[in-house]
Amino acid sequence: MGGDHGPHVTVPSAVEYLRHDRDTNIILVGRPEILTKELNALNISPDSRLRLYPASEIVGMDEHPAIALRNKKDSSMRVALNLVKNGEAQACISAGNTGALLATSRFVLKTIPGIDRPALAVVLPTISGHTYVLDLGANVNCTAEHLFQFGVMGATLVSSVENKPNPSIGLLNIGEEDIKGNDVVKQAAGLFRSSGLNFYGNIEGDDIYRGTTNVVVCDGFVGNVALKTSEGLAQMLASYLREEFRRSLFSKLAGLVALPVINAFRRRVDHRQYNGASLLGLRGTVIKSHGSADSFAFRCAIKRAVDEIRGGTLRRIVEHIETLRYNIEQNITQPASVE
Amino acid sequence: MGGDHGPHVTVPSAVEYLRHDRDTNIILVGRPEILTKELNALNISPDSRLRLYPASEIVGMDEHPAIALRNKKDSSMRVALNLVKNGEAQACISAGNTGALLATSRFVLKTIPGIDRPALAVVLPTISGHTYVLDLGANVNCTAEHLFQFGVMGATLVSSVENKPNPSIGLLNIGEEDIKGNDVVKQAAGLFRSSGLNFYGNIEGDDIYRGTTNVVVCDGFVGNVALKTSEGLAQMLASYLREEFRRSLFSKLAGLVALPVINAFRRRVDHRQYNGASLLGLRGTVIKSHGSADSFAFRCAIKRAVDEIRGGTLRRIVEHIETLRYNIEQNITQPASVE
Repeated sequence: MGGDHGPHVTVPSAVEYLRHDRDTNIILVGRPEILTKELNALNISPDSRLRLYPASEIVGMDEHPAIALRNKKDSSMRVALNLVKNGEAQACISAGNTGALLATSRFVLKTIPGIDRPALAVVLPTISGHTYVLDLGANVNCTAEHLFQFGVMGATLVSSVENKPNPSIGLLNIGEEDIKGNDVVKQAAGLFRSSGLNFYGNIEGDDIYRGTTNVVVCDGFVGNVALKTSEGLAQMLASYLREEFRRSLFSKLAGLVALPVINAFRRRVDHRQYNGASLLGLRGTVIKSHGSADSFAFRCAIKRAVDEIRGGTLRRIVEHIETLRYNIEQNITQPASVE
Repeated sequence: MGGDHGPHVTVPSAVEYLRHDRDTNIILVGRPEILTKELNALNISPDSRLRLYPASEIVGMDEHPAIALRNKKDSSMRVALNLVKNGEAQACISAGNTGALLATSRFVLKTIPGIDRPALAVVLPTISGHTYVLDLGANVNCTAEHLFQFGVMGATLVSSVENKPNPSIGLLNIGEEDIKGNDVVKQAAGLFRSSGLNFYGNIEGDDIYRGTTNVVVCDGFVGNVALKTSEGLAQMLASYLREEFRRSLFSKLAGLVALPVINAFRRRVDHRQYNGASLLGLRGTVIKSHGSADSFAFRCAIKRAVDEIRGGTLRRIVEHIETLRYNIEQNITQPASVE
């Protein structure tokens, strides 16, 4: 029911997704009358592939997470997470209030043994492909152990959904040298180095879009600022480019001629294709869609959930963390790499 | 002598700067034979406006700051800072090793009373103008008091060089609400709120390029990541755009037609015009130029130093900090705003 546009976007998006993926079923959770109305508008009836599941409450986009958690026990978000917990669904996808989704999913699903805090991972484009960055804002006061756990989860995510053995992990810092950075990052580098993971070392902000590593690890404060700063810069550059193409009659004509090229460029940087942040570290698969997602963007978030289920991401994170814990207990310094 | 290109760029840049600013004199500090060679190539002789000052050593771009500080007492960097300390020069401009410049300038010039740590401030473009961001990497483990001091210095910088009374200050965070952020940022917000400064409140990464506030305050780790991430994104987008315009015969032709517009856009986003980070909080004016600066970019850094001298930035920071300390001692909760 969540997101800036609610079921008016998510319901048609789910219907459209099912048309292209015959092996997936979707449960729409929310107020039945609202969901039915959206389905009626599409001339669709619920069936075994597209079920309705009632939830009477809606968490507002600005509602305080703790209050939503305490007071809204029949919210669509909470009910959907309960379906995952009870094994009736394999993943929960929400475009709703991020803080409430984090708090509620942690409360309902609990974290995987060995993971202190769940983290939000997103895919970002790079010059030659894409990279996975975490955490994007779930945790603002991180220890070195948290950053290390993010690295393990991120690497397992990449190896499971991209079928890429032993992905490289970069630690976001302000210089490549070991002496650079704050105390937490320096300690985290030590943990990575003795882990047996494919640790590239420290990377800098420009390495994200350069695609230097498959996984970029940072605390949620830094990751959130990096992501939002990128959004702001992209908007500014787009605004500048638009202004220049509108400056004179000549530039308008040049803009008309260049339109197919500009459009190809825009399709390539279309952030909607990267929609869907994976909430990793929980005993269930949860995907957070951007609140402003349109139908196409929300489908990308659904696809991300399906990819994680098919790749066995959750099971593999549990196994990987177990191996690491076993090795630490047994004092084995080189645990198995991520395969 | 510093920077990736050394005197081959900085000397011609200084000569060119003096041609356009008749009220400024420059002292070139470094190995006389190298400086003279560069001047000879330009058919220029030293005179009262362009003096040479000998320094026998050079700090390498990758040299450890502490080692440079201890062992290179006659480096061009150290000698130039001593000229500022002794009042022979009003500012030091360097394209050299950032860490060494930070350490050496702090050692030679000392901090202003009431300032714990110097901070690096840069100007960044926004949709409607520009904004000042600090710290950009001088401090990686910051307390709330440090962030507050950065805000005071940044606001004084803007008011002095832009003649803008009472500039607005934004605190870089991961949400606008008071409850957002890590502990340090929350405490810093409290200090700003009770300071009488023009505190806008929390801002997010996209607010930097949106130009929401005149000053953006963050710790050096976050600021550095935001800046470097921006550089990486800009490079990636430029690379994508170039690729799209080269994709086919048609797109190449479209690129030719659009070239004047693309060039106008590129001039507008040319980062060289923003070169020159102000190292604030020292008892002297110090500007750090990007190591890779060309002659035009280095002139922009010189201009920044001259603007600070003419605007009385240093004196005004000292006065402002004194007022704040006096008010705190006298228990006055609303000190004078920045004029």
